[in-house]
Amino acid sequence: MREEWRTFKGTKWTDDINVRDFIQNNYTPYSGDESFLEGPTEATAKLWDKIQELQKEERARGGVLECETEVVSGLTSYGPGYIDPEHKDLEKVVGLQTDKPLKRAFMPYGGIKMAEEAAENYGFHINDKFHKIFNEYHKTHNQAVFDAYTPEMKRARHSHIVTGLPDTYGRGRIVGDYRRVALYGIDFLVEKKREDFDNCGDGTMTDDVIRQREEIAEQIRALQGMKKMAEAYGYDISAPARDAKEAVQWLYFGYLAAIKTQNGAAMSVGRISTFLDIYLDRDLKEGKITEKEAQELIDQITLKFRVVKFARIPSYNQLFSGDPVWATLEVAGTGLDGRSMVTKTDFRFLHTLENMGPSPEPNLTVLYSSRLPENFRKYAASISVTTSSIQYENDDVMKPVWGDDYSICCCVSATQTGKEMQFFGARANLAKCLLYAINGGKDEKFKDKDGSPMQVGPEYAPITSEYLDYTEVMHKYDLMMDWLAGLYVNILNLIQYMHDKYYYEAAEMALIDTDVRRTFATGIAGFSHVVDSLSAIKYARVKTVRDVSGLVTDYQIEGDFPRYGNDDPRADEIAVWLLKTFMTKIRKHHTYRNSEPTTSILTITSNVVYGKATGALPDGRKAFTPFAPGANPAYGAEQNGLLASLNSVAKLPYEYALDGISNTQTISPNALGHSDTERKENLVHVLDGYFDQGAHHLNVNVFGLDKLKDAMEHPEKPEYANFTIRVSGYAVKFIDLTREQQLDVIARNAHERI
Amino acid sequence: MREEWRTFKGTKWTDDINVRDFIQNNYTPYSGDESFLEGPTEATAKLWDKIQELQKEERARGGVLECETEVVSGLTSYGPGYIDPEHKDLEKVVGLQTDKPLKRAFMPYGGIKMAEEAAENYGFHINDKFHKIFNEYHKTHNQAVFDAYTPEMKRARHSHIVTGLPDTYGRGRIVGDYRRVALYGIDFLVEKKREDFDNCGDGTMTDDVIRQREEIAEQIRALQGMKKMAEAYGYDISAPARDAKEAVQWLYFGYLAAIKTQNGAAMSVGRISTFLDIYLDRDLKEGKITEKEAQELIDQITLKFRVVKFARIPSYNQLFSGDPVWATLEVAGTGLDGRSMVTKTDFRFLHTLENMGPSPEPNLTVLYSSRLPENFRKYAASISVTTSSIQYENDDVMKPVWGDDYSICCCVSATQTGKEMQFFGARANLAKCLLYAINGGKDEKFKDKDGSPMQVGPEYAPITSEYLDYTEVMHKYDLMMDWLAGLYVNILNLIQYMHDKYYYEAAEMALIDTDVRRTFATGIAGFSHVVDSLSAIKYARVKTVRDVSGLVTDYQIEGDFPRYGNDDPRADEIAVWLLKTFMTKIRKHHTYRNSEPTTSILTITSNVVYGKATGALPDGRKAFTPFAPGANPAYGAEQNGLLASLNSVAKLPYEYALDGISNTQTISPNALGHSDTERKENLVHVLDGYFDQGAHHLNVNVFGLDKLKDAMEHPEKPEYANFTIRVSGYAVKFIDLTREQQLDVIARNAHERI
Repeated sequence: MREEWRTFKGTKWTDDINVRDFIQNNYTPYSGDESFLEGPTEATAKLWDKIQELQKEERARGGVLECETEVVSGLTSYGPGYIDPEHKDLEKVVGLQTDKPLKRAFMPYGGIKMAEEAAENYGFHINDKFHKIFNEYHKTHNQAVFDAYTPEMKRARHSHIVTGLPDTYGRGRIVGDYRRVALYGIDFLVEKKREDFDNCGDGTMTDDVIRQREEIAEQIRALQGMKKMAEAYGYDISAPARDAKEAVQWLYFGYLAAIKTQNGAAMSVGRISTFLDIYLDRDLKEGKITEKEAQELIDQITLKFRVVKFARIPSYNQLFSGDPVWATLEVAGTGLDGRSMVTKTDFRFLHTLENMGPSPEPNLTVLYSSRLPENFRKYAASISVTTSSIQYENDDVMKPVWGDDYSICCCVSATQTGKEMQFFGARANLAKCLLYAINGGKDEKFKDKDGSPMQVGPEYAPITSEYLDYTEVMHKYDLMMDWLAGLYVNILNLIQYMHDKYYYEAAEMALIDTDVRRTFATGIAGFSHVVDSLSAIKYARVKTVRDVSGLVTDYQIEGDFPRYGNDDPRADEIAVWLLKTFMTKIRKHHTYRNSEPTTSILTITSNVVYGKATGALPDGRKAFTPFAPGANPAYGAEQNGLLASLNSVAKLPYEYALDGISNTQTISPNALGHSDTERKENLVHVLDGYFDQGAHHLNVNVFGLDKLKDAMEHPEKPEYANFTIRVSGYAVKFIDLTREQQLDVIARNAHERI
Repeated sequence: MREEWRTFKGTKWTDDINVRDFIQNNYTPYSGDESFLEGPTEATAKLWDKIQELQKEERARGGVLECETEVVSGLTSYGPGYIDPEHKDLEKVVGLQTDKPLKRAFMPYGGIKMAEEAAENYGFHINDKFHKIFNEYHKTHNQAVFDAYTPEMKRARHSHIVTGLPDTYGRGRIVGDYRRVALYGIDFLVEKKREDFDNCGDGTMTDDVIRQREEIAEQIRALQGMKKMAEAYGYDISAPARDAKEAVQWLYFGYLAAIKTQNGAAMSVGRISTFLDIYLDRDLKEGKITEKEAQELIDQITLKFRVVKFARIPSYNQLFSGDPVWATLEVAGTGLDGRSMVTKTDFRFLHTLENMGPSPEPNLTVLYSSRLPENFRKYAASISVTTSSIQYENDDVMKPVWGDDYSICCCVSATQTGKEMQFFGARANLAKCLLYAINGGKDEKFKDKDGSPMQVGPEYAPITSEYLDYTEVMHKYDLMMDWLAGLYVNILNLIQYMHDKYYYEAAEMALIDTDVRRTFATGIAGFSHVVDSLSAIKYARVKTVRDVSGLVTDYQIEGDFPRYGNDDPRADEIAVWLLKTFMTKIRKHHTYRNSEPTTSILTITSNVVYGKATGALPDGRKAFTPFAPGANPAYGAEQNGLLASLNSVAKLPYEYALDGISNTQTISPNALGHSDTERKENLVHVLDGYFDQGAHHLNVNVFGLDKLKDAMEHPEKPEYANFTIRVSGYAVKFIDLTREQQLDVIARNAHERI
């Protein structure tokens, strides 16, 4: 046994890379309460103050403090950077993306046009030499994708029936197993990758084998780059971490390598709390550190996750509002052996929201089960009640699929840590698809050059009747979804191919098994509106309103109909049908690298943009207004309280939406109880009940609409500086949202009763 | 009919790209003699003098006049360049690779290391910024190939059992149909490529379809780049050429695009003479030009082909000695309808060797048939007798395979013009393979780090007997060839994949049909030595001489045996067997992009390098001495005169060596006759007889060894400045060869009798 591994148990993980085996053999479950937790050290407080000053300045400058214009971001393109260069000793965990905190790196590989535009957007100008280099010498992902798109694909993208595609930004959603750097050190990881390289292919050089061999070579190069990057900070990460401080630092270097080389929409951290606890626990037991110091390490790595930033373009910010990076980090969950995986460090991570106040990042995610220790569930609920900064995902439904060492790679998308990567693929607008079914593939908003409605979908016969007939609509919708699913998958095939070719994630993939499982993530937008529309057509009478050209542009509903979000089986059955049908159609198609197709019902904040592009719907939603986010019921649809709403969402079968089902709810504090204790206890009951039914995810906000309205009008009030809310799939500082997004959040239901 | 196409006949070629159809409908066969030809114009003479001055200066500077160090070569990276900027009017055909004649461009995409080394080699230093750009930002072909190689591949490469691979230089051997630029103009070509793009794939985005869509997009970009490149010279090539001068110029711009963007070993021009004759003929008939002016255009485009240069590294120069570019250009041939395709312009191209003296480039190739007009055959033979600058290839064997519009893409490799591309793949050393069969895969020259013979091939049981047993050798050789063929094909699969990925020939492929036929060219080195070795083992007694480790390092032959090159069926049958067997083994394997495997018996000048790496052989060839080149009999083997030698080579079935069978012969002038008239007539008889048997190729040199020896000792004599000889597959100025290569040429047989 290596000296660094003293006291650790188990044998499998010492010979092969197997972090799960290490964790299961060595972690110490904790079922006590939060009373052991310590406040922030002076060093942490000072650093956090410094960061807050910089964040204020950042906001004052329109959202970005500084953009790099001279250096292409890479593992070793900068020397060491510090939050406070004059007081480096404050930083227990070192490493910045660039040479200064909050300075945004120049990352051209996803698209030089976007990188230039992002900088310009904030008043910076990328050195012109890079324009030449990344246009003439080196092609970028975005250029390559647009080179290969078909006109149909461009039209579908333009009309937003397929939307939010990672063709103007990195696909992200790949979680390197950053723990490996700490547990094994780089040299062992290189050795294992070299073995993989030696065993890649039987000598027959098919394209697949060649591609993989080159990828492994790039991964080895990235691992060597990580060592150099760490050396700049005075650390030799070739060997395993020897103690908790090194474990935290090594792990962070692994993550830093990812965010220096990629700017994917989601750059998640993964499931690190139970792992790190093993090191903290050992140091505590050996008397090497105090609880205060243990908390300091967790606070400070968390602080690093809070300052991850990328330069984005305006259209990106519309999709993903409030500058999120999805530095998603999981706590809790249970093991395959039934033990709770809650450790003291799981508490420590949640406690950072108290020590340093609420924050959108890292995107703290509780892998929930009613079988988690009650003390932990209550503590998490109390953090939700006071900060609205965490989300809950159902470990009981995810564990059978992904095991007990999965990470969430964005908002709600599980991936087996270190064993899997995801081809992220944004969303298909199923609401617009319904309108195409009615209008024979003609878009209700976008026009051709001659002013006629753009023919985006196939020229199927439109519905010509005055009143919509359920059977006819369902038949035509089925055909149109067939078309959409095929087009969508093939757009993604193209994007993923080019991303691999021009913007391969070598540093992240270096920390993932070579024999990787690949999922092909699709997504659904407009979900609840389709369900309610079909319900209206079935159970009420829906009359079409046509423009002069005969295009249906609005609907009049005569009579009442059941709506999704009220635990009414008539509507909820349609919801289940919709999900299953779409997923089945997706599965028909060839997927890049034989990846496994999945789907999500998740829109982030893009529900606003998607809605803006989509005409009136038969459910009564007005044209060009926001969709409900994710799997949420439509605004105003929920009439029977929180639990009825949750029950409807809980019926959606996770097995058909393995990429996740996002549900965001706001509960008025008074609805939960009259004291924080009552509130946390009631919230635990709500969560237990919801997840025991097999629901997948819940964003929990606990505040009233009045607070939102006041924050919108008075963002300058200090109490709102870090006021964080959960939106579909992530957390955001409310004042960082656009007014449009703020109004959308306010428009949603805040449940006044459970 | 467009105005540019006035008087032209035919309809197919006007709607679709079909240069062959245009030629067949419009060319005027010529069966007269050379008496119509005109001498060079004053302008041509002045330009050629200027070039010769520069060439002298180039030689004085060690072989390279100047290397670009600041500009990455591309279609539009330079403004216009002229041979004599003060007398631009002298140039009837404009366009240089860089801004100055003979200045070598900086072409990093094949490998930045090589590009830097090439410049350093001649005392130039590439701007360091490019080192960063092409190492850190943009990977190059060479790096990518070495990233993916297996250790076995590296060993095979190191030991030269597989050798000359295009992993340190561009694969070349793609002939764009440069005539298309003249006949159609760029806009029509873009329009057709857009149609192809629109019809590429049925919507299912498999990797193949995506790759092809991106390639077409790159081709369209290249076509647009060609227009800009021509604009810099004051020409608008968007429309078809209106007259002969434009046709010559437009065609040259197409070729210029290729040599500005690629530095493949062979950058051939293709079959352009009959095509250009149609334009010259029309202008002559319309009284727009005189014969003098017609010849001037041909002289001047030829002059441009004479000055094509690339910066090369020393190891490349060893393989391909004397700075060749294989600007191969064909004349003559016959049509599928039986008509001779000889036109006056075919004479004009040969006549350039008289108007401007002998020259290695363009690599003038006569597509020979005994059915060509006698006048032409005699004229070609007379040019051979006086200049030794042309090669002959058998149209009668190529036409059934490639039709009547093929081009030679290097020395002996036919490709259908504009319909085909080749993945060039250098050579397998079958002689060394025989030694591996004897020594159980151990190399006879190269050692492992511990000093033991390097195990390159599989660890099959070696031969342990004192005398070689034919049956045992054949069995083991069969197994070892199986191994070699598989390894070789897979090395090439890898190289071709990376070349497509990092160094795609967009400009050349833009002038080739999108639905392209791809051949996968392999090659054989050491051919005649294997044949003679096996014959020795079979018909004489071959005793092994072993070193202390038991490795066979030499052979003693007891008795006599038949040798290839004497029209002896016993040896020649082995030759046929060897070719068929190797080709059959090659065909077993997966080839990149489902290309069609072919092979060649061709070594260029690399016979010297390959021989240097190969130990003694059972045919009596001493260790580490040169191989015979191409399909040539071994030095000293030919004992029965030229015709017997030619008869042996002619037995090799072209159908098994569709990439070509190279034969180089030197005939003493006296052996051919006592006057130039007698010599040309006798040479015609030799060629008729040889090719009528189905032989593929002949390099004809007519000089005595004394001349070679004198030229080696006195390169400064003015008569040797342009003294050109044919070596395996190309022509070279004798004084540009290394002394080693010169000695090798001198060592070959100069037939003193027919």
